[in-house]
Amino acid sequence: MDNKSLVTGGFTLPGEAGYEELTLQLAQKWGADVIRDSDGTQLSEAIATSGYEIYSTLCLVRADNQWAKEHPDKLQQCCIMSRPVVALATTVTIDLLSGYFRQQFRINSYDEPKTWWQVFDRTTGEEVRGEDWTFDAATGFVRIHNARKWHLYTVNFFCCRIWEEISMYNHVTNDWGDREHLMPIDPMHPEAQERILAYLRRWLHEHPNTSVVRLTSMFYNFWWFWGDHPKQRFIVNDWGSYEFTVSPLAILKFQDKFGYQLKSEDFVNAGLYNTSHKVPSRKYQDWMDFINAFVVDFGRKCVGLIHAHEKKAFVFYNDHWIGLEPWGGRFKEIGFDGIIDGIFSGFETRKVAGTRDVETRELRMHPYLFPTGVNGAPSFLEGGNPTLECKTYWIDIRRALLRDCVDRIGFGGYLHLVRNHPDFIDYITELAKEFRMLRSLHENDSPYTADPKIAILTAWGQTRAWGCCGHYNRGNYYNEVMESVSGLPLDVKFISFEDIVRRGIPATIRVIINAGTVDDAWSGGEHWSNPRIIEAISEFVYEGGGLIGVGEPSALRHGCHYFQLAELLGVDREIGLTRAFNRFQFDVDGGSHFMLRDLSGAPDFGTDAGNIYVLNEKTQVLAARGRSPMIATKEFGRGRSVYFSGHRYTPENVRLLHRAIFFAARAEGQFCAWLPSNVRTECAYYPDHQKLMVINNGSDPEETEIAVPGGRNIHVGLEPYGSRIVEV
Amino acid sequence: MDNKSLVTGGFTLPGEAGYEELTLQLAQKWGADVIRDSDGTQLSEAIATSGYEIYSTLCLVRADNQWAKEHPDKLQQCCIMSRPVVALATTVTIDLLSGYFRQQFRINSYDEPKTWWQVFDRTTGEEVRGEDWTFDAATGFVRIHNARKWHLYTVNFFCCRIWEEISMYNHVTNDWGDREHLMPIDPMHPEAQERILAYLRRWLHEHPNTSVVRLTSMFYNFWWFWGDHPKQRFIVNDWGSYEFTVSPLAILKFQDKFGYQLKSEDFVNAGLYNTSHKVPSRKYQDWMDFINAFVVDFGRKCVGLIHAHEKKAFVFYNDHWIGLEPWGGRFKEIGFDGIIDGIFSGFETRKVAGTRDVETRELRMHPYLFPTGVNGAPSFLEGGNPTLECKTYWIDIRRALLRDCVDRIGFGGYLHLVRNHPDFIDYITELAKEFRMLRSLHENDSPYTADPKIAILTAWGQTRAWGCCGHYNRGNYYNEVMESVSGLPLDVKFISFEDIVRRGIPATIRVIINAGTVDDAWSGGEHWSNPRIIEAISEFVYEGGGLIGVGEPSALRHGCHYFQLAELLGVDREIGLTRAFNRFQFDVDGGSHFMLRDLSGAPDFGTDAGNIYVLNEKTQVLAARGRSPMIATKEFGRGRSVYFSGHRYTPENVRLLHRAIFFAARAEGQFCAWLPSNVRTECAYYPDHQKLMVINNGSDPEETEIAVPGGRNIHVGLEPYGSRIVEV
Repeated sequence: MDNKSLVTGGFTLPGEAGYEELTLQLAQKWGADVIRDSDGTQLSEAIATSGYEIYSTLCLVRADNQWAKEHPDKLQQCCIMSRPVVALATTVTIDLLSGYFRQQFRINSYDEPKTWWQVFDRTTGEEVRGEDWTFDAATGFVRIHNARKWHLYTVNFFCCRIWEEISMYNHVTNDWGDREHLMPIDPMHPEAQERILAYLRRWLHEHPNTSVVRLTSMFYNFWWFWGDHPKQRFIVNDWGSYEFTVSPLAILKFQDKFGYQLKSEDFVNAGLYNTSHKVPSRKYQDWMDFINAFVVDFGRKCVGLIHAHEKKAFVFYNDHWIGLEPWGGRFKEIGFDGIIDGIFSGFETRKVAGTRDVETRELRMHPYLFPTGVNGAPSFLEGGNPTLECKTYWIDIRRALLRDCVDRIGFGGYLHLVRNHPDFIDYITELAKEFRMLRSLHENDSPYTADPKIAILTAWGQTRAWGCCGHYNRGNYYNEVMESVSGLPLDVKFISFEDIVRRGIPATIRVIINAGTVDDAWSGGEHWSNPRIIEAISEFVYEGGGLIGVGEPSALRHGCHYFQLAELLGVDREIGLTRAFNRFQFDVDGGSHFMLRDLSGAPDFGTDAGNIYVLNEKTQVLAARGRSPMIATKEFGRGRSVYFSGHRYTPENVRLLHRAIFFAARAEGQFCAWLPSNVRTECAYYPDHQKLMVINNGSDPEETEIAVPGGRNIHVGLEPYGSRIVEV
Repeated sequence: MDNKSLVTGGFTLPGEAGYEELTLQLAQKWGADVIRDSDGTQLSEAIATSGYEIYSTLCLVRADNQWAKEHPDKLQQCCIMSRPVVALATTVTIDLLSGYFRQQFRINSYDEPKTWWQVFDRTTGEEVRGEDWTFDAATGFVRIHNARKWHLYTVNFFCCRIWEEISMYNHVTNDWGDREHLMPIDPMHPEAQERILAYLRRWLHEHPNTSVVRLTSMFYNFWWFWGDHPKQRFIVNDWGSYEFTVSPLAILKFQDKFGYQLKSEDFVNAGLYNTSHKVPSRKYQDWMDFINAFVVDFGRKCVGLIHAHEKKAFVFYNDHWIGLEPWGGRFKEIGFDGIIDGIFSGFETRKVAGTRDVETRELRMHPYLFPTGVNGAPSFLEGGNPTLECKTYWIDIRRALLRDCVDRIGFGGYLHLVRNHPDFIDYITELAKEFRMLRSLHENDSPYTADPKIAILTAWGQTRAWGCCGHYNRGNYYNEVMESVSGLPLDVKFISFEDIVRRGIPATIRVIINAGTVDDAWSGGEHWSNPRIIEAISEFVYEGGGLIGVGEPSALRHGCHYFQLAELLGVDREIGLTRAFNRFQFDVDGGSHFMLRDLSGAPDFGTDAGNIYVLNEKTQVLAARGRSPMIATKEFGRGRSVYFSGHRYTPENVRLLHRAIFFAARAEGQFCAWLPSNVRTECAYYPDHQKLMVINNGSDPEETEIAVPGGRNIHVGLEPYGSRIVEV
């Protein structure tokens, strides 16, 4: 290990013109090797030539607003469902944009509405015939004739997006006043592609000091409808959805390639759209494939140009990331040198750390140096506590970094905001050092990882590995489980139902986890009616595999159970139709069960599934709330299943899940290696360095004992939020 | 009012041979005019000739066990789904009765299994071909060949019922040891009918002292599968289901009449059967109609014979009541003189009180004079408190009797068990007097009933008016609402979706209540996809009607809302698929809203629906739990809707619902007439008698003020559980 590398490097500082002294002073204090600009800040010549590497942000689709204004038919679009309107008469007038943020959208009336739009009677589900509706471009109203009184009507219509969403967010958050609204252009148009490449060429010439072009990001933003009403500023916000890639032109090109035509309703789905929580349809998967191929293709051209100018190209794993799919097969073709994401938690850390095909992985930490945070609460404003905020995120990030590291960390935003927070400045100094130490442990080494490989089974599989639908998805069983396992010393795979149908369950997998709610993509919905899935998982467990179900695993109204794996799990759920049935009266017998040994009391899963019942005497219930089991286990052949009625990321629940995995895998004997006695602490052992890193995940001082294989125990005391390196 | 009628009469005492003195002593103390026998007790000659009217119980289908034993193919049957079995190989062996109580069932192998049974692969939903399974009558096993490994298999098979369920329950509860198991014969067989009529003829001759034949009840018991395992004594228990009427013979007769054939799966429905909670299918409604016609037809013959012997015929509204449908159109054709039910609560009281076409309505009170109660807890055994138990039921029954009275009350069971409970003897003396007073108030008078007529809308409508699926259905929104309104001074109708389709919403109805859980019969399930329902209710509300939704009203996965009346209710529910949507941020503004005026704090609905959101600013939220509204209201045209996320029968919730009805009906101005200030008290005013009865529904003394129309207030103090008559 190189001592210098523990003091400096791997740290990206947001510089700010007008605050040159602060920039350079903090660059030194925090050990930065890179200075970046941010959306809304510039680097002055003095900073750009100060000897640091320079990252320059660039968002190609909103870069040339003049061109966008001159080409209003080359803007990005989306398809929107108007708010449902009840027919009070046989003529219904619908104000299409009612409820939506009118500064974000302009109705696209140049692509013939009668061709592209659809009007639905949502009460019957029938489409309204074209001759029964008219659109008035002047008012933005659709008028439906021969409507059926009291039925609910909606219009699927196309809009241009006239305020690029991230810029809009930054504009509104920082009160940018009358600064021009930037508009996103759509590279699906060849003219837009040409313009983007020309712009990029000029930009590269104009930024001689830039070493890394920090693309934020490529072309299509995640789905983010804003609302009109102050009480509903946002309508929907889905990090994983491709709804912002939709346009008539793209649909036509899709048809050329796939041989069939998509309609507006394929994107709207009666208002459910294609959210990440929905089991993706074949059509939608085709669409994603189409957009991915396009983004990769054009992205490669942009990156090629950057490389031709002897600069590196980094991409932001967020914002306009749609179509990149960094965990997909095509990603490497683009040729990015690095990937960066702005993150809050462990699962996002793993998402970045696990991205292959780039040389550099970087985390942009939070809080962003903005007055307020993503949820509108003060960060650097009066009332905020950015140091505590950062610590809170860091303990979740750090435990994930213990398992799989990244190359760099950094911040973004207005650097001058930190001036009144000397504690923040000091804390980041320490955090940067701790990160470098952690990074050094991963150099030429891998942390000890226990044997049982686990697979998380969802309808998305690897496509949404370590991702769900955004930063915060608390209460979503899948997301909570991801967060918990993100810091465990285990190999984790993400598999889909299609993976199982095509290739079976990988032979290396010892435990499968299915965590979700009925019909959602995480539980699997309609996939559970596929006999091949039932066959594969039943065989897997019967032959000795482990199965962990959380919430409503395998739930579907199909056949004679609600949980399609009820016979394996030993439990099922009462959903109101079978209340007349008397259920098997179980005894709760946790006793000294291996899984419960680190629980201090009754388990707390937050809001759990409830109304669970056991099938018969073969199910062992370890914990229950009233008459509804919370933890149950059953043997099936040589395999074991574990059911949890819910899961919430807490130290005790992490340990419970950890133990459940070893129990399900029949690997209890291997559990104790490098295990801290205190659940609020975790550790990782790096065998080649012979170093053990122990972390305190909480705000209190902690003592912990770590079992070293061979019988010896190591005692470690830790400061609040602290860590220690122990030579072993 | 006749003073004697306040001291004696309207009371049925269970006599017991061997306890003649006790019988006659208590008959006098409790003011009985009738002595009855019970299942397990006899009346001695001394009692039978003591001058009291004599009710004699008679259950015709289990009366002649010798004949039943000699005619094993004339026993009642049912169709059972075997417990699901996972195929571990391509041959699967299923022990048909595994898990079921083998003393209750004998597999029917004389009606050709290959004709009548069905074997299903529940994983695919496909029926297994007849050549792929064999039945071994010696073992009771079905063997499936060419099974698909890991698939779940079940067999629908027919069984004779070899232990009549009520007798079985009494036998087991009272430890009748080796007393013979009685078997139910099926009058669907002409031979059984002949035998029943012959038996009845003889019985009538042999019971000269009997004035009333107390039929308990007619032919078919409600559905009650028992289980094999001590931890699952009962498998299912549904007071409203016709599953015990099913047999090959009945299916053939049905086919003759209706022209189509029902199969075993029409009764099994993948293990859901036809429970009361399931929206009844057209086929099942046909089946009920068929059985009802049969029961009425043969029932009329039995009753005719009883009348020919100058005795009265009373029927028990329970046990073998299936097919009677006392609220249906055919009931009066049977010619019963009286109806009796064993009840615990207000809704059941209304069910009996509201039965037309009989002269006498009688309530059999609880606790039954048995050592233990229906739920297995001690009643007259050590540890029981029968007096408190009786008081607890009585306060719920009494408030219903305030609105609609019955003619008699009584008890059943072993009279000698009361000897060690002098407080019980004294309490029943008082209770009987209070009942007679109450009954006298209804003589030639009707209590004041407020104007808004309400309709409870379910898939069952009047067919399950004041009934759900048994005595206890706590937590079921429909049942809780029924219990609450059973004591309110309101006219209540029960309407079905088919009623609305056929006849529209009755013009007299001011408020419709829909209370249930998605897909269940109470909410309405698939009926909500019928546009005519949406049209009718929307128009009704728009023109000034009121709508109250509880739990998951109008819920169905259809169209663009989950609550199909979301636009009327102003709220909808998030079920996990639309978590990416940001919802309208409501303010909770209960303030001094009319509905909330008697709430002492936050409402408590027990387990409520949760995850409710408001559609837009037009919805007013009056109470919420976190970000999920509990009480919301919205205007729609001239009408008003009220949404409750749940309902639980408590004094405050009763008042809340009462106020909501007046609010929804825009009848706030009429609300205060005869309204007690204290929610733990209620009252009824009998205008012709000019008497007000005030009751205390709780275990504490209470003070209350009652607003007399005209401006005067009456102050009343009440003992715990007490009542007072006030002359007005």
